[in-house]
Amino acid sequence: MKITSAHGAGGKATSELIVGIFLKHFGNPALSLLEDAAELPVPRGRIAFTTDSYVVSPLFFPGGDIGHIAVCGTVNDLAVKGAEPKWLSCAFIIEEGFDADVLERIARSMGKAAAAAGVQIVTGDTKVVEKGKGDGLFINTSGVGVIADGVNLSVSGIKPGDCVIVSGSLAEHGLAVMNERHSLGLKSGIKSDGAPLNGMIAEVLAACPHGVHAMRDLTRGGLASALADMCASCGFSFEIEEKLIPVSVAVRSACGILGIDPLSAANEGKICLFCAPDCAEKVLSVLKKNAYGKDAAAVGFVGDKAGGPVYLKTAIGSKRVLRAPDGEVLPRIC
Amino acid sequence: MKITSAHGAGGKATSELIVGIFLKHFGNPALSLLEDAAELPVPRGRIAFTTDSYVVSPLFFPGGDIGHIAVCGTVNDLAVKGAEPKWLSCAFIIEEGFDADVLERIARSMGKAAAAAGVQIVTGDTKVVEKGKGDGLFINTSGVGVIADGVNLSVSGIKPGDCVIVSGSLAEHGLAVMNERHSLGLKSGIKSDGAPLNGMIAEVLAACPHGVHAMRDLTRGGLASALADMCASCGFSFEIEEKLIPVSVAVRSACGILGIDPLSAANEGKICLFCAPDCAEKVLSVLKKNAYGKDAAAVGFVGDKAGGPVYLKTAIGSKRVLRAPDGEVLPRIC
Repeated sequence: MKITSAHGAGGKATSELIVGIFLKHFGNPALSLLEDAAELPVPRGRIAFTTDSYVVSPLFFPGGDIGHIAVCGTVNDLAVKGAEPKWLSCAFIIEEGFDADVLERIARSMGKAAAAAGVQIVTGDTKVVEKGKGDGLFINTSGVGVIADGVNLSVSGIKPGDCVIVSGSLAEHGLAVMNERHSLGLKSGIKSDGAPLNGMIAEVLAACPHGVHAMRDLTRGGLASALADMCASCGFSFEIEEKLIPVSVAVRSACGILGIDPLSAANEGKICLFCAPDCAEKVLSVLKKNAYGKDAAAVGFVGDKAGGPVYLKTAIGSKRVLRAPDGEVLPRIC
Repeated sequence: MKITSAHGAGGKATSELIVGIFLKHFGNPALSLLEDAAELPVPRGRIAFTTDSYVVSPLFFPGGDIGHIAVCGTVNDLAVKGAEPKWLSCAFIIEEGFDADVLERIARSMGKAAAAAGVQIVTGDTKVVEKGKGDGLFINTSGVGVIADGVNLSVSGIKPGDCVIVSGSLAEHGLAVMNERHSLGLKSGIKSDGAPLNGMIAEVLAACPHGVHAMRDLTRGGLASALADMCASCGFSFEIEEKLIPVSVAVRSACGILGIDPLSAANEGKICLFCAPDCAEKVLSVLKKNAYGKDAAAVGFVGDKAGGPVYLKTAIGSKRVLRAPDGEVLPRIC
């Protein structure tokens, strides 16, 4: 079946699409009511709320697909704020003529990813645009999570002396998508690292409830963007050592061939984390025990120079400022 | 300035866009942190959570624009669940080459609409797709609201005998957009009814805390779709009288010329509401005192026939089943 504009008109065809594909793969009592908003019980306290649209091209790539990263990415954005991710929305913008079987394959992937992350997709929306006015499928997921009492993760909590930890090997998502999109034929076996990190992050916070100060999900713009942003917000310099940053041999070779900086390429299953120096060993040991954190490494520390910047001690021993990439390293990577 | 793919890459250009346009027009302390998720205080109890993507074409039309309805539509989806709308996310999918001045005009409209509705836009996302892979601008807004203790609005609360009330004159949004899109040249002065209805709905709930059983926002597919959906979910028949349904003379004439059923056309500032019959007078009087509800009317009641359908007693006295439109009445209307 091909998607037609009737599937986006809010009438009978829309209902059939929702029941036949979306409820089938990620239904639950809150979503199944199909009301204007889902009603959800929360404890007193704080919630985390986030949104991301996914426009990745192509829709399927080694290690994942748009639906998988749409769930994992939003789960991870909640988790790095110290929240337990609970509920997601999903909104589809579908180009007319899109194959409903492909949509179902993506919905199935979202259902599996939501189950793996322990979240429910509780509200949604479907719009259809004319052929030539979209690009197959765009997905927005927004997410709500609950922040436990005593958990306070924010860039403003970063202190001089904090240890900077990266949870694993970088740039895999960016290279996997690029290889697939441009049929580069790199036979490196590099797969997207898309993964729900909430379980691993909860283990870290349980082990070191007060020592972890801030985390960030490393997506578009990679580690370089995340560090530059956090540095600008927290007001201290960072001292990062390139040779400590985990990058696999396959990724390093591919980046060399393509002229891409692995520090600026996208990830979908990696975080950077700032913690008090006396917690670093504990944090690293918890991360390394988890499959998603086995290559975690301490890569530097927070300096006391007010106003930044991020210094990178390069592999050849020089020191330069690490900046957010100016423009697009790899467009439509997520 | 034209939007380029660099504005969607998550680096420096993205930051400049966010600060220069989005924070400028709807900044607040939660959003300004620009972290992966916004952290928000909630009372113990229940939250409502909703999402909608807006793909309306054209982006500007008499009475509103995509930004205005993106805020109002999501506010209204929360309000009809009985929630006080508190926080919105906004996610932009921008086509490369889009004019940043137009984006700013839309952001300004969103800021004004959010202020009028008393909500804050606390988290966001910006993606850019290549020219020809989008259509100017798509916006997703998701929303979180707080449901007060004792408020329980749901289709499952609808009872036989309930009065069905429509909050005002129908089909204005649909006709305004269609007139603008196709340059139909109807000089009827019909404007989109896009409006935040949370204030009016709160007044109704305060006046009749227990008598109101369910509400629905009348958007795509209009009153016909909403009633057909609610009828199917609640399990009782509805008896609706066509001549009681408020439709302005201008809209009725335009619909006649264009062959459009005003009951199936879109609204952006109208709800239908189900309440106990002894509350109907009070509900109507509260609605009519509000500028957004001045043309409110009781249009029928809930029957006791199990399993539906929605019966419509037509203006000429016959009785027919009112169904959700099969396909697209007006595509890309919201």
